[in-house]
Amino acid sequence: MPDLFIKGATIVTMDDEGSIIEDGDIEISDGKISYVGPHRERGGAPDDPNPAVRTVDAAGKIAMPGLVNTHCHAAMTLFRGYGDDLPLKQWLEEKIWPVEARLSAEDVYWGTMLGCLEMLRSGTTTFADMYFFMNEVAKAVEEAGLRGVLARGLVATMPGGDKALAEGEQFCSRWNGAAKGRIRTMLGPHAPYTCPPSFLRKVANSAKALGVGIHIHVAETRGEVDDCLRDFGKSPVRHLEDAGLFEVSVLAAHCVHVSGEDIDLLKDRGVSVAHNPTSNMKLASGIAPVPKMLEAGIAVGLGTDGAASNNDLDMFEEMRLAALIHKVNSMDPTVVPARQALEMATKGGARALGLSSEIGSLEVGKRADIILVDFGKPHFYPRHDIISHLVYTAHASDVTTVIVDGKILMDNGKFTTIDAEETTYMVEQCVERLLRKGNRI
Amino acid sequence: MPDLFIKGATIVTMDDEGSIIEDGDIEISDGKISYVGPHRERGGAPDDPNPAVRTVDAAGKIAMPGLVNTHCHAAMTLFRGYGDDLPLKQWLEEKIWPVEARLSAEDVYWGTMLGCLEMLRSGTTTFADMYFFMNEVAKAVEEAGLRGVLARGLVATMPGGDKALAEGEQFCSRWNGAAKGRIRTMLGPHAPYTCPPSFLRKVANSAKALGVGIHIHVAETRGEVDDCLRDFGKSPVRHLEDAGLFEVSVLAAHCVHVSGEDIDLLKDRGVSVAHNPTSNMKLASGIAPVPKMLEAGIAVGLGTDGAASNNDLDMFEEMRLAALIHKVNSMDPTVVPARQALEMATKGGARALGLSSEIGSLEVGKRADIILVDFGKPHFYPRHDIISHLVYTAHASDVTTVIVDGKILMDNGKFTTIDAEETTYMVEQCVERLLRKGNRI
Repeated sequence: MPDLFIKGATIVTMDDEGSIIEDGDIEISDGKISYVGPHRERGGAPDDPNPAVRTVDAAGKIAMPGLVNTHCHAAMTLFRGYGDDLPLKQWLEEKIWPVEARLSAEDVYWGTMLGCLEMLRSGTTTFADMYFFMNEVAKAVEEAGLRGVLARGLVATMPGGDKALAEGEQFCSRWNGAAKGRIRTMLGPHAPYTCPPSFLRKVANSAKALGVGIHIHVAETRGEVDDCLRDFGKSPVRHLEDAGLFEVSVLAAHCVHVSGEDIDLLKDRGVSVAHNPTSNMKLASGIAPVPKMLEAGIAVGLGTDGAASNNDLDMFEEMRLAALIHKVNSMDPTVVPARQALEMATKGGARALGLSSEIGSLEVGKRADIILVDFGKPHFYPRHDIISHLVYTAHASDVTTVIVDGKILMDNGKFTTIDAEETTYMVEQCVERLLRKGNRI
Repeated sequence: MPDLFIKGATIVTMDDEGSIIEDGDIEISDGKISYVGPHRERGGAPDDPNPAVRTVDAAGKIAMPGLVNTHCHAAMTLFRGYGDDLPLKQWLEEKIWPVEARLSAEDVYWGTMLGCLEMLRSGTTTFADMYFFMNEVAKAVEEAGLRGVLARGLVATMPGGDKALAEGEQFCSRWNGAAKGRIRTMLGPHAPYTCPPSFLRKVANSAKALGVGIHIHVAETRGEVDDCLRDFGKSPVRHLEDAGLFEVSVLAAHCVHVSGEDIDLLKDRGVSVAHNPTSNMKLASGIAPVPKMLEAGIAVGLGTDGAASNNDLDMFEEMRLAALIHKVNSMDPTVVPARQALEMATKGGARALGLSSEIGSLEVGKRADIILVDFGKPHFYPRHDIISHLVYTAHASDVTTVIVDGKILMDNGKFTTIDAEETTYMVEQCVERLLRKGNRI
């Protein structure tokens, strides 16, 4: 007997056939999808005598896989709107780094919880995160009920790299598979320019021993690539290959400035890419050659990056921007059509995180990570094309219900695991302490 | 005695000083703003004995000028999602033009009404529109209560140009200043490539005689510019100047492919520009040199273009995209900062439409076109920077209340002038007739 029914939805399955099921049902048993298909009459109606069975009436709604955010620093919601529209160096040196140096574990906990709140509100069910005080991040994810692929960020160009790596290893040992499997861990060497090759090799060996992947920023800016060419005589991608990093599963964030040769190498080594269109545009980093990476068959997911450079965690915006920016960049309106953008935000993201067998589509046997989107708003009429509407016109706020692992985390706009009022209050307290008591930069 | 009070808002005035008033009040008398400033105790509370006085409690909300959409074809909501991701020529020739040829007056009425519904929902109070069956468009605007600057589109490269011009003139005579001044009219020669120079001169003379401005598409694609250079030996902007068009007020939509010389000419002749970032990206038209146009002092507003190439009428998205696209295009994160994007969507748009003295900012004496934005959502925390949040994180759905000319058109999410259910139903009926009865392309 399933423990949750979703009835009467238009189901955008994102399965390999791209099936869309009108008036469909989804049944969930023990956190997994046990049926997805046409509506069928059976028990579990709202007046069912078994109170353990909940039926969600999804008439007029789209049911689709929860969105997968493949690159985030959730705690940076604390810095949303704190220092916009500045040159990158000034933004980092005068704004972000000084305040990050003052962050406490509690700040990271509440910043992450606000991030989780915003992600649930906007239909994201899984996110990959790299930051520090990661035990707090994991606690927030465990409590909020999302799925997280978490990595302690490692910087080795200043003292403390080895200590950070040891912490990262401990974090992996403690949390990998925690929260009933909702938490996975990675090691998070920050970037080629903040981790020397010898350190990267150590991280790769450690990841191998731990059986975890690696999350790293790669080729985000032109300057990074130029420096790497100057210092090592090769591109960041080649540099990472030579350091042995690609001997384990790697999630490479950004990959804005990569050559055709780099793309071939990423493909050959099975490296996944997290594409962050808003962040790359806002920081003026550049436009990643995503159509070429997709054509090469690389697993490309979408990410928001941190809220300090976005400034929100809205994956609907990332989908839309991914569909728009590559059209104008290539002067070709057929590039990254709506379905491809939707794929990157769902099954592509799942593949990029190594979670294809568990999430990313609505199919029997997968974990029940499902969102409902209210299609009754004016911007969804007329109904020419559901996939187009989800990408080009849907807003985060059209999401009404979010389910992760079969548990309803947002129920018709109401959060069941997070106290939104407490979270926003505590975030303001953290910010007050961090920035407003003589600390304001 | 004012007839409407807004109390306790954070007021983003968009006046020349960029004033933001915490806990402020706005009083509205006879459709105009009669007070804007700090909260003051006085009559008009919810229990005021005078039932004609309505008080809107705006605690926790931003009050700001209604957004101004400077380039739209509202009725094209009918084609939202109908033929995306296609090459421009195929999209026009196989999809849009055949179905436009079948449009009836009733279709245009309901399509425009859906556009008005969506614009109200997303905080737009004024829009400039160019289409046909414009009497129906004007009727929809009059009934919906928005402010419209309306032009009958004129194409003269096929038979009927003079008849269309006559209709356009009649439309101006009938509707300019109608709906208590909420409707203004323009003449709408479609583009340099669809209107020969002799026709453009006729239109300019007619506009002069009628005392109205001109709304025209200019330099939208590279191909248009190349053709103009080939056929006339000059750029579209120079071509329009030579045809005498700039002797009247001109609103030039797009201006994607304009040279430095063109920009100087636009500035010298006081031509306004409607910048449409989403449409230009989606159709792969290119990226307009907006930072240069702003630097030159040209009045630049933002527009959505029609929903067929956007696919929504959401000015918050246009603001955000305007702030993002020019950063990455110039590889400079300081370009088009948040305030400048917000200005383009409000006072810049008002200036572009020649309505600066009436709308675009919240100041005493201006028409009361005001929207309230609910700042209580997770994505607005913490509160580092209100202007940043309005541009980089606000969603259309955060708008709760829309007031035009002192009248509440959307009251905490409820429409007071438009029957949303009837509108979406009628739109589906129109589409059914247009496309689904053997007419499907």
